[in-house]
Amino acid sequence: MSLHGIFAPLTTPFAPDGSIAPARLRENIARYNRTGLAGYVLNGSTGESVLLRWEEIYRLWETSKEAAAPGKLLIAGSGAEGTVETIEHTHRAASLGFDAVLVRTPHFYKPQMKLDALAEFYLRVADAARIPILVYSVPIFTNLQVDAALIARVAQHPNIVGIKDSSGDVEGVRKIIAAAPKLFQTLVGSASTLFESLELGACGAILALANAFPELCVEIYDASRARDSTRAQSLAQKLIAPAKILGPQYGIPGLKYTLDRLGYYGGPARPPLLPVSDSAQLEIDAMLSNLTPDPAHL
Amino acid sequence: MSLHGIFAPLTTPFAPDGSIAPARLRENIARYNRTGLAGYVLNGSTGESVLLRWEEIYRLWETSKEAAAPGKLLIAGSGAEGTVETIEHTHRAASLGFDAVLVRTPHFYKPQMKLDALAEFYLRVADAARIPILVYSVPIFTNLQVDAALIARVAQHPNIVGIKDSSGDVEGVRKIIAAAPKLFQTLVGSASTLFESLELGACGAILALANAFPELCVEIYDASRARDSTRAQSLAQKLIAPAKILGPQYGIPGLKYTLDRLGYYGGPARPPLLPVSDSAQLEIDAMLSNLTPDPAHL
Amino acid sequence: MSLHGIFAPLTTPFAPDGSIAPARLRENIARYNRTGLAGYVLNGSTGESVLLRWEEIYRLWETSKEAAAPGKLLIAGSGAEGTVETIEHTHRAASLGFDAVLVRTPHFYKPQMKLDALAEFYLRVADAARIPILVYSVPIFTNLQVDAALIARVAQHPNIVGIKDSSGDVEGVRKIIAAAPKLFQTLVGSASTLFESLELGACGAILALANAFPELCVEIYDASRARDSTRAQSLAQKLIAPAKILGPQYGIPGLKYTLDRLGYYGGPARPPLLPVSDSAQLEIDAMLSNLTPDPAHL
Amino acid sequence: MSLHGIFAPLTTPFAPDGSIAPARLRENIARYNRTGLAGYVLNGSTGESVLLRWEEIYRLWETSKEAAAPGKLLIAGSGAEGTVETIEHTHRAASLGFDAVLVRTPHFYKPQMKLDALAEFYLRVADAARIPILVYSVPIFTNLQVDAALIARVAQHPNIVGIKDSSGDVEGVRKIIAAAPKLFQTLVGSASTLFESLELGACGAILALANAFPELCVEIYDASRARDSTRAQSLAQKLIAPAKILGPQYGIPGLKYTLDRLGYYGGPARPPLLPVSDSAQLEIDAMLSNLTPDPAHL
Repeated sequence: MSLHGIFAPLTTPFAPDGSIAPARLRENIARYNRTGLAGYVLNGSTGESVLLRWEEIYRLWETSKEAAAPGKLLIAGSGAEGTVETIEHTHRAASLGFDAVLVRTPHFYKPQMKLDALAEFYLRVADAARIPILVYSVPIFTNLQVDAALIARVAQHPNIVGIKDSSGDVEGVRKIIAAAPKLFQTLVGSASTLFESLELGACGAILALANAFPELCVEIYDASRARDSTRAQSLAQKLIAPAKILGPQYGIPGLKYTLDRLGYYGGPARPPLLPVSDSAQLEIDAMLSNLTPDPAHL
Repeated sequence: MSLHGIFAPLTTPFAPDGSIAPARLRENIARYNRTGLAGYVLNGSTGESVLLRWEEIYRLWETSKEAAAPGKLLIAGSGAEGTVETIEHTHRAASLGFDAVLVRTPHFYKPQMKLDALAEFYLRVADAARIPILVYSVPIFTNLQVDAALIARVAQHPNIVGIKDSSGDVEGVRKIIAAAPKLFQTLVGSASTLFESLELGACGAILALANAFPELCVEIYDASRARDSTRAQSLAQKLIAPAKILGPQYGIPGLKYTLDRLGYYGGPARPPLLPVSDSAQLEIDAMLSNLTPDPAHL
Repeated sequence: MSLHGIFAPLTTPFAPDGSIAPARLRENIARYNRTGLAGYVLNGSTGESVLLRWEEIYRLWETSKEAAAPGKLLIAGSGAEGTVETIEHTHRAASLGFDAVLVRTPHFYKPQMKLDALAEFYLRVADAARIPILVYSVPIFTNLQVDAALIARVAQHPNIVGIKDSSGDVEGVRKIIAAAPKLFQTLVGSASTLFESLELGACGAILALANAFPELCVEIYDASRARDSTRAQSLAQKLIAPAKILGPQYGIPGLKYTLDRLGYYGGPARPPLLPVSDSAQLEIDAMLSNLTPDPAHL
Repeated sequence: MSLHGIFAPLTTPFAPDGSIAPARLRENIARYNRTGLAGYVLNGSTGESVLLRWEEIYRLWETSKEAAAPGKLLIAGSGAEGTVETIEHTHRAASLGFDAVLVRTPHFYKPQMKLDALAEFYLRVADAARIPILVYSVPIFTNLQVDAALIARVAQHPNIVGIKDSSGDVEGVRKIIAAAPKLFQTLVGSASTLFESLELGACGAILALANAFPELCVEIYDASRARDSTRAQSLAQKLIAPAKILGPQYGIPGLKYTLDRLGYYGGPARPPLLPVSDSAQLEIDAMLSNLTPDPAHL
């Protein structure tokens, strides 16, 4: 299974009363279906998974399966802290027809989540899974970074086919690619290091920003594949300011506000995430006009 | 409600098949009822809460309510990432007759969990709660440390009565005590800074080590209350090596092995936590014999 | 003494043989004298101070004093790990006619550099100093962040007139401004949070990027002072990509390459800093053309 | 050159007026000469090197060379931030008859101190050096941890003979030992992980605590070499509380106070390090009596 290209980890639409809004998700997906995105991740970090109940997540998985165009790959965020629970969610994703799962590192008991424990976790999940697994390293949220030693340990398993590395650590990505078997697929999750990662050998990316700017992300990917480094690099730098503003600075509420501004359904995030402030809105507006004088082109 | 004294955040007994074992919890509590412990915390970090389903947690809360001796305070770990979900678990704890809840900081979306978001979270939970709330700061797991500015913001709420600060940062504890109203109760969660914290004005502690060494912890507390600093300090230092070995080093599996060695029910931890290795067992055994030549005295 | 405006912390020109090149510094300053910069910092972090001997630093201070136009404030980086040594360098700066000193937090013995030790350090230096002192917080290099509690402790000293806060932590800056006396002057050192910091009440900034883009930095400052938030915010976002690329990503060697491209003297950095790679050069070139189609306008 | 055994990184005695006191260093060394220590490190982190001028350091190196008994190895801390400066200090150590140098990672410009820069730094120093080099990883002070990838890169150099790893990260030590050539010598710098590290294959240790408890440290080493794990482990745990109290908690001033209590010359530390408070003294006294009822036996 090839995971080349740009994937969007979709946001979760909520109704004004805070309940999930599957119809809105369907509408967003219909629009993404017309882009060059390779597929969608349902309920990763950007999908507010830790603020959802699993029954809600399953419902969103079903919806996305119905809405996604043929040819768009579907990846489910099935990771939980517990091994057994992760396997259960992985089975559900397989039953619903997902192509793969993205399994975040368990991380709460950080001092114990050393090489042996993480390797055992991924190998047990992979043994049980009926669809392929991507390891998911997202230290900005977990404070735990997957290193090349772990990948060397687990990447031989036939069911462990790749990693989403959102560390933003280009050197770490380089080491992982060096340590992994040739067919292991490395995707990155950091828009601000997209160009460098593709040059190093990453096969694609799963980018929160692809919710808002799918075509720009795809253009960077295409330019890099076409060996047009100058163009790829120049386009890629346009993502740095948005990545900061919609990433650590304003997070999911900022991204959802941006989606609303661009004609997608963004809507509210779930508390304790706060709505974007007035000044944040101005800052995002300024970012959008810096990005292009004509937002219709995004 | 006074929270003075030493509380044990109880471990969760599992049967060999991985299911929860309420009968074993009952037995452990029966033994703790005969100690000087002030009460119990059910399903905090030490209780493997993130590896349990909420239905399992509710069951353990019911069991502990039945088993705890009169006079032992009961505190429920009701924190989840979401505000609404935290309120729901808090209501359940109140319905089951718990005296208070311990609410861990939401932390997954760390870059957004700034002062305003955390204050709003705690105030909304406190508005809704029918029993008092303790803020819970445990940066070793959450990578997010509650500071005096947050306490200054929320401690005026009549329902927010104290904090469990497990940071091990004595200076941080000092600042929190200085910033909080006089009646706000500061408990610490770090055995290796117990003595200093009590001297600074902490009113008590919630200590994982109190599962294994309840009487030693209580003796330190009593010596400090009796102004016998020399004795308190000398006893407190006996906890430093156990705190390291059963804390960051071997964590919950190490603590559970220790409980088994001391005649409590420890049993297995849930994966991805690994069982203690042979060498870890030897190290814990050495710790126990250093602590006292005669383990019966612990 | 007013520290309002934008200051450049000048880079240190080295000759190809690695020795300092004061004549080149003089030329750069001559050019900066024609900009709207408020003044210069000599041998802060951007000046490679930790890679210079103090005799070299003194020589560069003398050179800059001769070269700076009247009205440009001169600030010397006089901080060392030791209290006595810091006082000695501060005296030298005063003798050479500098207007103020910037004193980085001592940080090597981090676990001991708590509130009391840092307060004592700054108060002793301030007692001895004959010119005003700015506290310097630069956690990206020191891993130690000055907080509002320290500023509350030291800002009453008549010789401690402000802070350069390079943390990039807008919330931390807000707390410092709230805790400090009205006349205390807060400058920031992070280009990517310049706009927000000025809106919060920072009086100016000391920006590595002001070496390369002095006029753009000054325009942002002027727009903010003129209450034209929309323009200030939009201009400020142009600095985000350069701040990342010339900050954490390629650091001083990247900044010096940029200076060479813009007609200043950049030259080599001292080892162990490595020269910029070919791909880094391409990335910086792309950044410069994204910033403006015509580099002559920078 | 074999670096097996326990080394003490000697503290720097200061006179009451703050100047260095070589005569006191000589007295301390005379006493250490009668222990089983394998040698001494002069002016590493414990020697307050960053608070000394290099002329003072050279003077202390000369003194120690005169005072050390034949057979005691002498290691000089010659690392500075700059490559050229480090080489210069390394040459001086060789001229003074030192056996090896300990070279701390440059770390101030942390974001640039990636694998390539650090490898280049160590290889250039090693090319120039006339005596063997130990890499020194001490993240508690530098926030930079040497990993197996760096060791794999530099350990082939004939002049790079080992590492002092003070990370306290047993897993990291395990990876380094696995990645290094068989003859590469791994010493650890963390007393609280001494036993485990020796079992893993570390050949010895450089321990601040060996200033205070040289014989206890040597006994642990000897028991481990003699394959008496039970005894080694039990003795090693006695160091955990002292390691915390004299390490992160009270640091060098705490260690020096301890030395004074044990009949060595401790004396004051240099500001900004503060003297130990009264309560810290009581805590250290309690630690000493917990360690042994009879301090004469230490």
